[in-house]
Amino acid sequence: MHVVVTGGAGFVGSNLVDALLALGHRVVSIDNFTTGFDRHLDGARRATSFESVRCDLFLEPDRLVELFAGADAVVHLAANADVRFGWDAPRRDLEQNVIVTHNVLEAVRCAEVPRVLFSSTGSVYGETKVIPTPEDAPFPAQTSLYGASKAAAEGYLAAYAEAGTVQATVFRFVSVLGPRYSHGHVIDFVRQLTRDGGRLTILGDGTQRKSYMHVSDCVAAVIGELTSEERFQVLNLGVDGYCTVTESAKWIAARLGVEPELHFTGGDRGWIGDNPFIFLDTSAARARGWQPRHGIRDAVESTVDYLLANPWIVDATA
Amino acid sequence: MHVVVTGGAGFVGSNLVDALLALGHRVVSIDNFTTGFDRHLDGARRATSFESVRCDLFLEPDRLVELFAGADAVVHLAANADVRFGWDAPRRDLEQNVIVTHNVLEAVRCAEVPRVLFSSTGSVYGETKVIPTPEDAPFPAQTSLYGASKAAAEGYLAAYAEAGTVQATVFRFVSVLGPRYSHGHVIDFVRQLTRDGGRLTILGDGTQRKSYMHVSDCVAAVIGELTSEERFQVLNLGVDGYCTVTESAKWIAARLGVEPELHFTGGDRGWIGDNPFIFLDTSAARARGWQPRHGIRDAVESTVDYLLANPWIVDATA
Repeated sequence: MHVVVTGGAGFVGSNLVDALLALGHRVVSIDNFTTGFDRHLDGARRATSFESVRCDLFLEPDRLVELFAGADAVVHLAANADVRFGWDAPRRDLEQNVIVTHNVLEAVRCAEVPRVLFSSTGSVYGETKVIPTPEDAPFPAQTSLYGASKAAAEGYLAAYAEAGTVQATVFRFVSVLGPRYSHGHVIDFVRQLTRDGGRLTILGDGTQRKSYMHVSDCVAAVIGELTSEERFQVLNLGVDGYCTVTESAKWIAARLGVEPELHFTGGDRGWIGDNPFIFLDTSAARARGWQPRHGIRDAVESTVDYLLANPWIVDATA
Repeated sequence: MHVVVTGGAGFVGSNLVDALLALGHRVVSIDNFTTGFDRHLDGARRATSFESVRCDLFLEPDRLVELFAGADAVVHLAANADVRFGWDAPRRDLEQNVIVTHNVLEAVRCAEVPRVLFSSTGSVYGETKVIPTPEDAPFPAQTSLYGASKAAAEGYLAAYAEAGTVQATVFRFVSVLGPRYSHGHVIDFVRQLTRDGGRLTILGDGTQRKSYMHVSDCVAAVIGELTSEERFQVLNLGVDGYCTVTESAKWIAARLGVEPELHFTGGDRGWIGDNPFIFLDTSAARARGWQPRHGIRDAVESTVDYLLANPWIVDATA
């Protein structure tokens, strides 16, 4: 297949690019390199069936039809993936997640690409009362600009699919960890603990329950749905369980060989829009043959190992 | 109270403006007059507590903070309200409904307006299987660009409310009819039948089941929630029942005193994204003391009467 990956130099994107190339697909990565890293594509560049295009999906929508022409699928991963700092720049999620997704969908339609796959988030469920949360949970209220922007983008995918111009698959991920991970609590904790192994500050009271998954499981799910026949489908992706933020802090500290004092900023949320409990029902994805190979602790520890082996990314995102 | 109404020269907006003025409130209407009509505000202009401002919420977001300053509430009704022609200009709903709502919310936040009320739509439920449809129906898939844009806007209201910057009420309306109504199937049918009373073309097979409400009931609901204490609330608004498109065509013809042959374009949907069955559960709004005073047939017939008395609007929207 000929697959275009937006955000191809990003964390999930570059892992997907590598996996697609290993399977013999032709791959075009599109990235503006604001949060993606060129060096994530060092391996991909060895393949003759790979091309990396620097393009800004928000500023240069007119280039997309040509870039998408002839593709069998567009995997749209490019996004502002930050949940926590939404209020620092309230228009960022709107531009990078909603308007950009609309730009991508219009180009997909005009270029007549038959399929689009999209990385949404478990954050779209807001503070749902149904846990584990299935895809058809009650119509949620959004609790973050990030969740609102991803829910908005999902709605556009559904409307385009309904119009018959494209088949669409939406993945609602829990937080993703593993090689090339570059933002979120694991890197924050590693950064703190490599500076001072004796003390760790945790946002909230540490009892927030979160679910994480390994990027390779996420990539496997995307690849598995590249040939889906569903006109529109939403699939939760996550592991069978959850941990508290304090538990993950202890795993991280142990992996680093330190025993910090834990300091909590307090409250049951780490920030405005932080969800105190995320745990997705993934039975729909499992019924389609997917299952995660990595547990939560495994995902957390492999991320710590990656960050220790790649201190450049800890510095680059500081 | 000092209330700002966006889309104040529009169908619902101008009815709301008049009702607010009658109750003694201070009212500022903001409209770009692309689909609103200056003459809808003729009555309002007689009040000294009324001001009409020509402003484009998409093109001139920087004016909004000043225009909202000191308001007790912003009722955000300005929108592209057309469901059917979304695919003629796929970016219109994004700009007019999503980006504009974000512009309004940012200005509401910066101007520290304590409350915002928003006109959403029953279309956000897509083709739900739960009918009558309650506010917490299963997480829907959007079936139109209009529904997608309103669902997206709702998500932003929820996120802003969650951040504690504003209280927000979202109304999910069925189609609204009554005085100053200016687009939709009733005006289409009246236009056809005043040209040729012997023939009426109906999109789809006429069996689509729809619910309509009278604009005065809609306005009463908005006014009733102006002092709500809920941080974020979604309320369906509609009547107790529905009719088929063919039934409403017959009521319209009878009101016009004609007996047309009905021609159906066929299919169970009038257009891409047309919802074959809309009927909302309004028990949440009723539990808060609201109830509609007009039935469906009453709403349809009063609209025909208005259009007959105001042929200028039939011409102006042709």
